Amino acid sequence: MYTRTVRLRDTDAAGVSYFTSILESCHEAYEDSLAATGIDMRSFFSNPETAIPIVHAHVDFLKPTFCGDQQVIRFTVNSLSETEFEVHYEIVSTHKSEALIGKAMTRHVCINPISRDRKPLPEDIAAWLRRWSIA
Amino acid sequence: MYTRTVRLRDTDAAGVSYFTSILESCHEAYEDSLAATGIDMRSFFSNPETAIPIVHAHVDFLKPTFCGDQQVIRFTVNSLSETEFEVHYEIVSTHKSEALIGKAMTRHVCINPISRDRKPLPEDIAAWLRRWSIA
Amino acid sequence: MYTRTVRLRDTDAAGVSYFTSILESCHEAYEDSLAATGIDMRSFFSNPETAIPIVHAHVDFLKPTFCGDQQVIRFTVNSLSETEFEVHYEIVSTHKSEALIGKAMTRHVCINPISRDRKPLPEDIAAWLRRWSIA
Amino acid sequence: MYTRTVRLRDTDAAGVSYFTSILESCHEAYEDSLAATGIDMRSFFSNPETAIPIVHAHVDFLKPTFCGDQQVIRFTVNSLSETEFEVHYEIVSTHKSEALIGKAMTRHVCINPISRDRKPLPEDIAAWLRRWSIA
Repeated sequence: MYTRTVRLRDTDAAGVSYFTSILESCHEAYEDSLAATGIDMRSFFSNPETAIPIVHAHVDFLKPTFCGDQQVIRFTVNSLSETEFEVHYEIVSTHKSEALIGKAMTRHVCINPISRDRKPLPEDIAAWLRRWSIA
Repeated sequence: MYTRTVRLRDTDAAGVSYFTSILESCHEAYEDSLAATGIDMRSFFSNPETAIPIVHAHVDFLKPTFCGDQQVIRFTVNSLSETEFEVHYEIVSTHKSEALIGKAMTRHVCINPISRDRKPLPEDIAAWLRRWSIA
Repeated sequence: MYTRTVRLRDTDAAGVSYFTSILESCHEAYEDSLAATGIDMRSFFSNPETAIPIVHAHVDFLKPTFCGDQQVIRFTVNSLSETEFEVHYEIVSTHKSEALIGKAMTRHVCINPISRDRKPLPEDIAAWLRRWSIA
Repeated sequence: MYTRTVRLRDTDAAGVSYFTSILESCHEAYEDSLAATGIDMRSFFSNPETAIPIVHAHVDFLKPTFCGDQQVIRFTVNSLSETEFEVHYEIVSTHKSEALIGKAMTRHVCINPISRDRKPLPEDIAAWLRRWSIA
């Protein structure tokens, strides 16, 4: 679970959050959970031997969000194979009454960043997957 | 067709484009085509009577992109009903050799921004849809 | 005082925070302090009669920041006239040892957003100024 | 000279460009001029031996800008020493009539990115400086 406030920079001239900002919030929740497992963010994202890029993302927008809104992002992870996993997100507004704002998913594949060949997920990510998976 | 250069702000510490920047590029292409049809961007996005928010987006990432890469975004639109349409995007690198970088889709629904009720797409958007639809 | 974690989206391909992200963090601290005074963010930033745009900003970068870094933003406000104020920010890393990362300033002027003429700051902002000013 | 259109992502709920987007546009102009001199953007920004980070930036906002506005960014460079230079930017709207929208400056220092010690600017940047300096 990750809590977040919608900031002016997230919004656009239509008066609501710009459509990609919800995906950025989901990625913040992902980073937050990795860091909570003890993974160092700086070395994780610039590891010359292992990268885990997003290969697919999708998002459904159910309600608009406005500057100052309080949000909670809940997520579960789903291991697909030894090289691949998905993260499923629900974004809930807690501003006035609780309301489901959107749902999103990101799929991640572990590769060698030079050759772009697939490789098994490292042990620290495997541990993170076990922690956040639904039974 | 819309051409674009990947800028430093699009990239992240993994050395490649941050995952939402491809969706932002697609939206730039959408804005560019609306403007080319004579639609005024400022009034379009802050019209108090009609909004056409994105209700769904998805994106597949096929190859990484780097700062300085030249890209072409090709798209087609698909009218779903009198209140709803989809835009399908292909992002092609033209930097060295031509390569498909990613594919994306955004689905848009026409609403009254206050009541959030659906309403028919305005005539200028209907004209834009006819112009960009495949046969 | 506002605490914040540097996120992947804040960084660029040079491996550090993109230069404008420090100003965005400062603005988050500004929004946070306004909200803490009871000002509603949504209506504050889209008030049709009063806007308080930034007319000048500057920033000094003293140390690089990396994904995952913990930061504290301290600020003071300085009333210049009944229509104008400045916010002075210090960004301090709390990641390993405490270090001054940067300093910034934003100057804000109260105007009518249609005529762009200056007008006195509203009472809720005047109260916020009194709360955050140094004696 | 660099031309640019203000995009929805540049704007915020106040209906105008978010304050840092003008600095991002200036950096795009900087990147564009470097690339025009033959400097490869990907290797320039991730060179393990030489980095030229921004150590100071300031910006004055003279007029608001809106989604769809056409802008031209003109700039000149000013060599300060063998390790340091400034870029001065003027952002001009060309949407309806020509108007000065803002002015900005960024100061850049050449360093070793590991030791953070200053070092002389590389020859390709020195050539770029000669090309863009005023007499």
